[in-house]
Amino acid sequence: MSGFVETLIDRFGPSVVTAGAESPEKYHHDWAGLAPVVPLALVRPRTTEEVSEIMAACHSEGVPVVPQGGLTGISGGAHPVARGIVLSLEKLDRIEGIDTDAGTLIAGAGVVLETAQEAARDKGLFLGIDIGSRGSCQLGGVLATNAGGNTVVRYGMARDHVLGLEVVLADGTVIDGMNTMLKNNAALDLKHLFIGTEGLLGIITRCVLRLHPLPPAKETAFVGCGGTSEVIGLLRTARETLGPMLSSFEVMWPSFFDIMSEGTGLGSPLAGKHGAYVIIEATGFDKEGTRTAVETLLEKAFEDGLVGDGVIANSVKEERALWAVRESPAEYERVLGPVIPFDVGIPIGKMDEAVTRIEAEVHALFPSARTLSYGHIGDSNLHVVINVPEAGQNQPEKEIKACVYGITRDLGGTVSAEHGIGAIKRDYLGYSRSADEIAVMRGIKQVMDPKGILNPGKSFDEGQAA
Amino acid sequence: MSGFVETLIDRFGPSVVTAGAESPEKYHHDWAGLAPVVPLALVRPRTTEEVSEIMAACHSEGVPVVPQGGLTGISGGAHPVARGIVLSLEKLDRIEGIDTDAGTLIAGAGVVLETAQEAARDKGLFLGIDIGSRGSCQLGGVLATNAGGNTVVRYGMARDHVLGLEVVLADGTVIDGMNTMLKNNAALDLKHLFIGTEGLLGIITRCVLRLHPLPPAKETAFVGCGGTSEVIGLLRTARETLGPMLSSFEVMWPSFFDIMSEGTGLGSPLAGKHGAYVIIEATGFDKEGTRTAVETLLEKAFEDGLVGDGVIANSVKEERALWAVRESPAEYERVLGPVIPFDVGIPIGKMDEAVTRIEAEVHALFPSARTLSYGHIGDSNLHVVINVPEAGQNQPEKEIKACVYGITRDLGGTVSAEHGIGAIKRDYLGYSRSADEIAVMRGIKQVMDPKGILNPGKSFDEGQAA
Repeated sequence: MSGFVETLIDRFGPSVVTAGAESPEKYHHDWAGLAPVVPLALVRPRTTEEVSEIMAACHSEGVPVVPQGGLTGISGGAHPVARGIVLSLEKLDRIEGIDTDAGTLIAGAGVVLETAQEAARDKGLFLGIDIGSRGSCQLGGVLATNAGGNTVVRYGMARDHVLGLEVVLADGTVIDGMNTMLKNNAALDLKHLFIGTEGLLGIITRCVLRLHPLPPAKETAFVGCGGTSEVIGLLRTARETLGPMLSSFEVMWPSFFDIMSEGTGLGSPLAGKHGAYVIIEATGFDKEGTRTAVETLLEKAFEDGLVGDGVIANSVKEERALWAVRESPAEYERVLGPVIPFDVGIPIGKMDEAVTRIEAEVHALFPSARTLSYGHIGDSNLHVVINVPEAGQNQPEKEIKACVYGITRDLGGTVSAEHGIGAIKRDYLGYSRSADEIAVMRGIKQVMDPKGILNPGKSFDEGQAA
Repeated sequence: MSGFVETLIDRFGPSVVTAGAESPEKYHHDWAGLAPVVPLALVRPRTTEEVSEIMAACHSEGVPVVPQGGLTGISGGAHPVARGIVLSLEKLDRIEGIDTDAGTLIAGAGVVLETAQEAARDKGLFLGIDIGSRGSCQLGGVLATNAGGNTVVRYGMARDHVLGLEVVLADGTVIDGMNTMLKNNAALDLKHLFIGTEGLLGIITRCVLRLHPLPPAKETAFVGCGGTSEVIGLLRTARETLGPMLSSFEVMWPSFFDIMSEGTGLGSPLAGKHGAYVIIEATGFDKEGTRTAVETLLEKAFEDGLVGDGVIANSVKEERALWAVRESPAEYERVLGPVIPFDVGIPIGKMDEAVTRIEAEVHALFPSARTLSYGHIGDSNLHVVINVPEAGQNQPEKEIKACVYGITRDLGGTVSAEHGIGAIKRDYLGYSRSADEIAVMRGIKQVMDPKGILNPGKSFDEGQAA
């Protein structure tokens, strides 16, 4: 054990600091599927002051720090480095308060998203951040990755919920930016340096989140469209008809829907086959008005030839059934075997071309490849999941990524719409950000973390990952 | 004329470059009321490439650059410095396109806000940024100051409308960040460096703005409440009842309402006197539903004792009448004489205390002082306007500012909710940002503008203003 780790254990005790060799395996990787790495130590501070002291020590000794939350990220943003500590924020798990007049929630970085959602709901308010890993992911990680999800079209990304942050900088300085006001124009809004930058510029320790009124009504429709251009027309009609009631607009192309509805045995809510399937969710404050608005939308869409068939859920059970195939990605392994997943963003006007080109060009490379296309199209986010059956565990990642990210670059898209860059997309950041943009990011990194100890090798950091 | 200006004129011609002495007076100040300053030259580039070349020249020679838009700012953020050029973006005034499927507008920095609003409306879409100076202010300035306005409670600040920016850095580097997608998580989101930083880190030349569906229905109510605590209760009820239909929540205390309704002769929409007056505006996609929701809100608020009297507009004419006193600040000079204006932000839970303390402490200092309190309370923004009658043109700015900003600091508020810091609040930035926060801002400034040529003396810049 290194002298540095011994010093940390002496100072904070074994409940906070665990030598790497003794640390549980779950801290050795996130959900990105990278080979586990044993860190120098696992450190789980209980207070902001402890985070500050630990950072000061690491800064002084030049020891890398990889921050970790719920470890549900799939870009390797929380993947340990062997020569550095893992700094888990999980013990900063206190909800400090909810202000129902201001509509704000104050919480530690280690609070599980679902816990925060429930706390808000208990007070009659609504936290508009929701992602599949809600039961495990933690607020610090959600904000550091600027997580997206199914309701971004209505409530925005994680960033859009943040009023204030407390952050510990590389040298241990505590930045108290726990603003609780919707408006604050006092110069540079520092919180945006830390949101979506995966711990490269500082460690988020606490946050103030904005809460919304809890919409009591929800309607869910499932429709079949002729193809992508009808989907885009439907999106426009949905925006015009539902306005801010439109809370989800999820699209599944047959490449995804047919394989997953059959492979899982879930089947389809509709009788026939269609060129694209869309889930439309509307939330509102007037039960009857919300239902009427969704019915009006569907009627208009039928008349305009945008929709061929459709159904509206009449119960929570039916609602879950309409979402079932969309929520089946946990079954990929069973249905498809190993997959290469993408969360690219594509400008709406290029979406049709993107789906067509990706499926065609991947098939040209690997004729047996299965390319499953779906996504949160209301906010430009296209998910593609690819499997080459005969490749087994050795999926041709490099060729497939070059193809998909190359098309994304051609179309002016982004290599990450919502999952972040982390370790596994670092080499592709240049596909979506210019050399000048990356130079600005690195200039800021240099001034905020001159020793390069914060999450080396991730996102726009040029340091060594291992 | 300096050799530098001669070189610029030789290179770009007299339609782009005007020597300071020949420049029109309107470029010598903004609306902050500071003494006019004649700049070294007025430079009005026609393209991003020209902006880049001008910046490179200024960077090379160390010549300060003060960017200017519509000059409607009231914090002196666009005030010239004598040893530097004024860089007006007014010729970058082209709306490049509106994508109705994606809901985006692409425009140059010099486009007047109202022109952009109308272009969106012509396509059946809605630009959710709206401020009083809409007919003169330009998009570049609106974004560089992160302007607020009356509809922030629904649509957010200017920042929340920006999908992408093109920016020219201090050394002339053009950063093409013209993202058109709602979601883009490719590392640090650089646009937030330039939004709200008043040109200190770069010059905004073009932007991609998000458009919303145009809500066809609007309802406006004017109510009288017992006092601030009833106002806060009403805000909560309005959020719960109207959800995202709530588009404005404007409060006027008697200190503002009585003086301005009498002084302007506009009178009151209500018969009696109340402890606070509130304008509630709701916009929606269903005419009847929107009206019903506002009526329901008012009934509930009456029952709960939150509201003593109220009226809902039945025509556009009536709607304008309900807003008339709120929109009378242009009459301050006539009604009050010279005033000292504030745009502080106060946490909702401290609003009552803030209004009470500011009015009491200012009166303790200057017994004859008139303190007019009002604001966008739905988003924590309190405007106070103060006049000491016997002081005439020599209003006791220093004492009054120390008092109001001191109370703001005590209550955890911000010295600027929406107008920005500029030149006139720079000395008070430390009331709302810690020394550590300002140090981070200055560290970033140092790396992005090492010669300190961008808008010296404004916001968090420590350079000489003159």
